Amino acid sequence: MAQKPSIPKGTRDFSPLEMAKRNYIFDTIKQVYQLYGFQQIETPAMETLGTLMGKYGEEGDKLLFKVLNSGDYLSKVTPEELAERNSLHLAAKLCEKGLRYDLTVPFARYVVMHRDELQLPFKRYQMQPVWRADRPQKGRYREFWQFDGDIVGSDSLLNEVELMQIVDTVFTRFGVRVQIKINNRKILTGIAEVIGAAEKIVDITVAIDKLDKIGLDNVNQELREDGLTDEQIEKLQPIISLEGTNDEKLNTIADVLGSSETGLKGVEETRFILDTLKALGLKNEIQLDLTLARGLNYYTGAIFEVKALDVQIGSITGGGRYDNLTGIFGMPGISGVGISFGVDRIFDVLNALDCYPKDATNGTQLLFINFGEKETAYCLPSVSKAREAGIRTEIFPDSTKMKKQMSYANAKQIPYVALAGENEMAAGKLTLKNMESGEQSLVTIDEIIKTIQG
Amino acid sequence: MAQKPSIPKGTRDFSPLEMAKRNYIFDTIKQVYQLYGFQQIETPAMETLGTLMGKYGEEGDKLLFKVLNSGDYLSKVTPEELAERNSLHLAAKLCEKGLRYDLTVPFARYVVMHRDELQLPFKRYQMQPVWRADRPQKGRYREFWQFDGDIVGSDSLLNEVELMQIVDTVFTRFGVRVQIKINNRKILTGIAEVIGAAEKIVDITVAIDKLDKIGLDNVNQELREDGLTDEQIEKLQPIISLEGTNDEKLNTIADVLGSSETGLKGVEETRFILDTLKALGLKNEIQLDLTLARGLNYYTGAIFEVKALDVQIGSITGGGRYDNLTGIFGMPGISGVGISFGVDRIFDVLNALDCYPKDATNGTQLLFINFGEKETAYCLPSVSKAREAGIRTEIFPDSTKMKKQMSYANAKQIPYVALAGENEMAAGKLTLKNMESGEQSLVTIDEIIKTIQG
Repeated sequence: MAQKPSIPKGTRDFSPLEMAKRNYIFDTIKQVYQLYGFQQIETPAMETLGTLMGKYGEEGDKLLFKVLNSGDYLSKVTPEELAERNSLHLAAKLCEKGLRYDLTVPFARYVVMHRDELQLPFKRYQMQPVWRADRPQKGRYREFWQFDGDIVGSDSLLNEVELMQIVDTVFTRFGVRVQIKINNRKILTGIAEVIGAAEKIVDITVAIDKLDKIGLDNVNQELREDGLTDEQIEKLQPIISLEGTNDEKLNTIADVLGSSETGLKGVEETRFILDTLKALGLKNEIQLDLTLARGLNYYTGAIFEVKALDVQIGSITGGGRYDNLTGIFGMPGISGVGISFGVDRIFDVLNALDCYPKDATNGTQLLFINFGEKETAYCLPSVSKAREAGIRTEIFPDSTKMKKQMSYANAKQIPYVALAGENEMAAGKLTLKNMESGEQSLVTIDEIIKTIQG
Repeated sequence: MAQKPSIPKGTRDFSPLEMAKRNYIFDTIKQVYQLYGFQQIETPAMETLGTLMGKYGEEGDKLLFKVLNSGDYLSKVTPEELAERNSLHLAAKLCEKGLRYDLTVPFARYVVMHRDELQLPFKRYQMQPVWRADRPQKGRYREFWQFDGDIVGSDSLLNEVELMQIVDTVFTRFGVRVQIKINNRKILTGIAEVIGAAEKIVDITVAIDKLDKIGLDNVNQELREDGLTDEQIEKLQPIISLEGTNDEKLNTIADVLGSSETGLKGVEETRFILDTLKALGLKNEIQLDLTLARGLNYYTGAIFEVKALDVQIGSITGGGRYDNLTGIFGMPGISGVGISFGVDRIFDVLNALDCYPKDATNGTQLLFINFGEKETAYCLPSVSKAREAGIRTEIFPDSTKMKKQMSYANAKQIPYVALAGENEMAAGKLTLKNMESGEQSLVTIDEIIKTIQG
């Protein structure tokens, strides 16, 4: 019996126009990565649960899609384990594999497994879907794409500089104005050190982040409620009200951090990155923002985030430095720094601003109308000739009504249509119709090729 | 505790060189599809089991990777169902989704779900991984790639012609000599009809296929063992010993098929396809082969298969016409014809013949050596300038030993290295080293760009 088909919730089909736009995004980012010497890798959709579990927190473990073992998957499960009905425990018995949750953990696993063949520093990009059993909502999918670039095996801050240049170049090529925000985990650690409240650093950044919304008094009140003493809050005042250029901000922070070696190291790193970028000249603004605290437990140095200026959508790219990515897989001491482009959100931004180039769709350029067997036989060599010249060409396969063929051309937005009837065949030519202007002319296939190639 | 990581059996990591080669394969096929007006779609990795189950036979159902329901997946299972320990039955309770097994069923599902927005005929290509819980062995993976092209909504044989042109163009661009084999399901049906043994057609093609290996007497013996009468075998003799050009073969077949309308329709279709292709001129040979019987129950018209001439590896591309793909999803009467490129085998063939173009790797073209902070600051604007000119450029991020940096250049096969010390800085120039010839020269960044751009 025929069923009405559907797809799993939170997943999507991509139709030709969407694919063309997505490919434009992927290709643009890819080309910029390549310009900076990054090389592509791919890892399997399925990883062992040993690789995935415990890497994304308790919540993450629950959001992993687990793949049922094939064959008699019940053979390793005792009747007692079944009767227990403990979903989490039983899943570990029923499943050995899960779907990739991000590209970072598989990359760490890759680096460890391929250590002997890798030339460090290793600059890789990777563009693959990831899967999370999150509750689907607007803009949040269960299957979505990440486009990561990382450099592992080098402590140099030039890597941070290059990643910012990559971000700047990518969004400039897209024609999207962005603000790049930068922070440094070491500065945050330093602040916590000097006020003597290391465990409060998350609360502090959360409170400071509300300054614009709730005002200084309320921020201070919130800090008090978070358990900070008046003395600690007093020391934080220059940080909370931090203003001015990046240089001015760094000077203020350095003052506050006075005695913290870690904190001053963070200031120095940030200064180098910002100074170098200033000398090279970015197209987009880069701003020091101490409230930027993404993945705090994960990053150990610079932290980045990118926001679109003309669309309200949250972070569209982010990243930072991590000092021990591969440690979890038994290979300590490899430092890395990376960024991740949020392709689905970038797609939304480019749609909102309608900034796809006209030729991004790679659509058909020339359609031959099908008037019947004889006319088709006459046209086919010209069809081949156009394709040999690199023109994306179709001949309508069925000799249906002219109207249907023309509406096919319109629906596919094909700019040129060629046709041949008695007159054209007698003249050894074709009629070429410009679908935009409506203009028609009797020409040879060579002239058609020349016209379309511009 | 650190674990030694691994990946699920039958899956693969793809390292930069492999990725570059695979991208060359994907891009080449993609460009040819586009040249013929095909448009790309993508479907989700997970489909509902309702979409997948029952489409690939009983064996296929077992080979589907099923995804455990998220959350409390046990809540819908009764204690009795658990106690029953029936793997297949229980799986249907534990799992609602499975991983894509091929691209054909998801495409049929796509056409049905998007019927209102599709302009027929719809020419789509799709290039995505599929997953099968097959026993892994050499050349057979649990995650592998398919690259399908299909035209649905048109009965015209011009579609068959175009698919053969696409195959011919793709392998010509690869520089791989192939033999294209063509058959027609209707001819096979006709043969079965005229000898009055419709249910024996698979046995017959299997036996005929052995002619070269075991000789005519043994083929006839096998047919006898398959239960054919002497009279039936007698009638088959011209078919078994079929020889000559495609035209001669078609004439012989037409003689044998005499009274079978279906069979003669198959001859006529094949004749049109072959005649049209002859007029257009293929680079590779196309041969009528009655033993070609792939997916017999699935195809209803033309059947194709492609074999490499210079590498022993089996079929590397195949396809055919099917008359009711979307019927299973409640949308009857849509005819389609398609081909599928076996990307993993094509990769093996191109490796065996070493026919990747030199520039397929998109590797770094220019490396700046890092001598320290001052030299780096001097080089960075030139690095940017090279990239702006489209040259894939790196600067080594750490100022380590020259030897290490040069071996990095060698390992990544970077053709040019630039360096700047005191002398170069004083002259406002750079030393450019051609890594192949060893030649060095003192030049400006503009000259370097000109040299590399050729």
